[in-house]
Amino acid sequence: MAQTTSNHTQNVSGWAAHDSSGKITPYNFKRRENGINDVTIKILYCGICHTDIHHVKNDWGITMYPVVPGHEITGIITKVGGNVTNLKVGDRAGVGCLAASCLNCEYCKEGEENYCDQLQFTYNGIFWDGSITYGGYSEFIVADYRYVVRVPENLAMDAAAPLLCAGITVYSPLKDNNLLDSPGPGPGKRIGIVGLGGLGHIAVKFGKAFGHHVTVISTSPSKEKEARDRLGADDFILSTNADQMQLKRRTLDFILDTVSAQHSLGPTLDLLKVKGTLVIVGAPEKPMDLPSFPLIFGKRAVKGSIIGGIKETQDMMDVCGKYNITCDIEVVNISQINEALDRLGKNDVKYRFVIDVAGKPSGL
Amino acid sequence: MAQTTSNHTQNVSGWAAHDSSGKITPYNFKRRENGINDVTIKILYCGICHTDIHHVKNDWGITMYPVVPGHEITGIITKVGGNVTNLKVGDRAGVGCLAASCLNCEYCKEGEENYCDQLQFTYNGIFWDGSITYGGYSEFIVADYRYVVRVPENLAMDAAAPLLCAGITVYSPLKDNNLLDSPGPGPGKRIGIVGLGGLGHIAVKFGKAFGHHVTVISTSPSKEKEARDRLGADDFILSTNADQMQLKRRTLDFILDTVSAQHSLGPTLDLLKVKGTLVIVGAPEKPMDLPSFPLIFGKRAVKGSIIGGIKETQDMMDVCGKYNITCDIEVVNISQINEALDRLGKNDVKYRFVIDVAGKPSGL
Repeated sequence: MAQTTSNHTQNVSGWAAHDSSGKITPYNFKRRENGINDVTIKILYCGICHTDIHHVKNDWGITMYPVVPGHEITGIITKVGGNVTNLKVGDRAGVGCLAASCLNCEYCKEGEENYCDQLQFTYNGIFWDGSITYGGYSEFIVADYRYVVRVPENLAMDAAAPLLCAGITVYSPLKDNNLLDSPGPGPGKRIGIVGLGGLGHIAVKFGKAFGHHVTVISTSPSKEKEARDRLGADDFILSTNADQMQLKRRTLDFILDTVSAQHSLGPTLDLLKVKGTLVIVGAPEKPMDLPSFPLIFGKRAVKGSIIGGIKETQDMMDVCGKYNITCDIEVVNISQINEALDRLGKNDVKYRFVIDVAGKPSGL
Repeated sequence: MAQTTSNHTQNVSGWAAHDSSGKITPYNFKRRENGINDVTIKILYCGICHTDIHHVKNDWGITMYPVVPGHEITGIITKVGGNVTNLKVGDRAGVGCLAASCLNCEYCKEGEENYCDQLQFTYNGIFWDGSITYGGYSEFIVADYRYVVRVPENLAMDAAAPLLCAGITVYSPLKDNNLLDSPGPGPGKRIGIVGLGGLGHIAVKFGKAFGHHVTVISTSPSKEKEARDRLGADDFILSTNADQMQLKRRTLDFILDTVSAQHSLGPTLDLLKVKGTLVIVGAPEKPMDLPSFPLIFGKRAVKGSIIGGIKETQDMMDVCGKYNITCDIEVVNISQINEALDRLGKNDVKYRFVIDVAGKPSGL
């Protein structure tokens, strides 16, 4: 049932899942009028994130149906509210995961809205006016200007879309661990990326752009050639090969684990030097196994990180503009969403599906 | 079977476990001659650490029997080798967990021998000469001077003994996380200590000495009065009480988890503020459960830490001297070791057993 909120008067065509069968179908709903703090964005492209599958299928038990997924949105601004001074009609804009936060807590004040306790997401969230938020699988979106970023002119709008979630998710922990300062004269750090999917492939690009020695760690032997030849990774460890894992013990300064499936952290921790850091950005449904010995004997740290704040997301966009970093994508049209979701569930994509929202469905 | 190493000519009376039944009985063995880098220490007291039980019972599958436990040793130096300039006969000395390390790696050079890959322990280790190391349940020990610390004059030798393992185990992560700098004018940080045993009670003392707000987190309601009245803790959370745990969400800056039993880290992580740190110093036999959501949504860190380096152990001893910090102990004589081990296995001690090694067995 479509919600009704008094100032939600704009009709929008979108695509939604209506139950946990996970099937996406056309869905017409309403968005609020463009308020004084809002911008309206005509959506051009929207990336398909693994989180979309979790919500569509209600994996986490928190989905409010019908759900219009999509939080990797690029488009063109078509309206701006009276309070908005940093964006104008015609600007190339991006919207990521964040739709609202309290604006008053220490995290909001420090540009870390992503850690605000009152955080609300771009879809399946509750906006300040009490309405349920609907995401980027739709023709336009109304967003508070404080949660909108600019997309640099030199970045393709389709390949830039996944930066809004996949990109910032890996950028933030790399930045936070001092791995994205200007490339220095030295050889950089030795960093490992676990999983070569939508998140992992961007992390490899950031790592290489900033002069680090990048090792891809994967359960798939087929990923080695891709990692080295296509993405420029320096090394590859097949994590199912005990000999390789043993040989590379205590060799890495930092590891970013992008895998969202259930796994033990012990073997990965053993790859870290003493005092090394493993950052988790995935969200397996069940707890991960954390054995004590590799943690305490190596004085290692396991840290969590989730997306990034808006200022940091803009910084990332600007860095991507400077280094010409975008995602490797496969563009699909509206009529292919369900097929794309199925293929993403099998990791059958290099490396991100992006929906051509403004394009015509094929065959129409 | 007693080992034979050519220069191991000194007869020592000690107490050993001979198999995984865990029973400690008298055991005569040999130690090396006092070499040019060695000091010989007449042992006065030796604390009983939970690790002793793990070794006696071969819980970790690594025990080399017969094992002479004990790595919380205080005593008086009776011989010094020609290269030893920082210690002299008659000095009050302490020996902890470390017997040897490579002396050449970056960790050894930085005074972090505890993270050396070639680390050997005070008992159940392999010394440089190939001999198996025997611990402090014995009348004297020969130790390389680089692994010996001085015990301040104002500290009782019995109550100081557990500082050599329990003390440094909690001191090191507190220091490493900037919680043991000089007490400032402010109210300090809000720190939590999980588990009120041999380690936890010392951590509370350090926390209070340095001006922090200390919360004890325990599964035992009976610990609340002790924590508050005896140790001066500011707050107490019964971790089995969901209401209390919910009420204290996001309130602590730092938590030290001293529990060596299997447990999930999720509820503890939820007590931390955003960017808070949980340090693990226990070694449960099975992996701990680490749920992703409280880790990533709180940008929290789970770190490991094991004992400390020798320089840091001396620093801790000096801090304990300055603030008059020792352990709350129950002294037992040699004939009570087995009873003490049994009681320790049931956490029936406030808060550490210390063996009066130089005293006479009761009833003799």
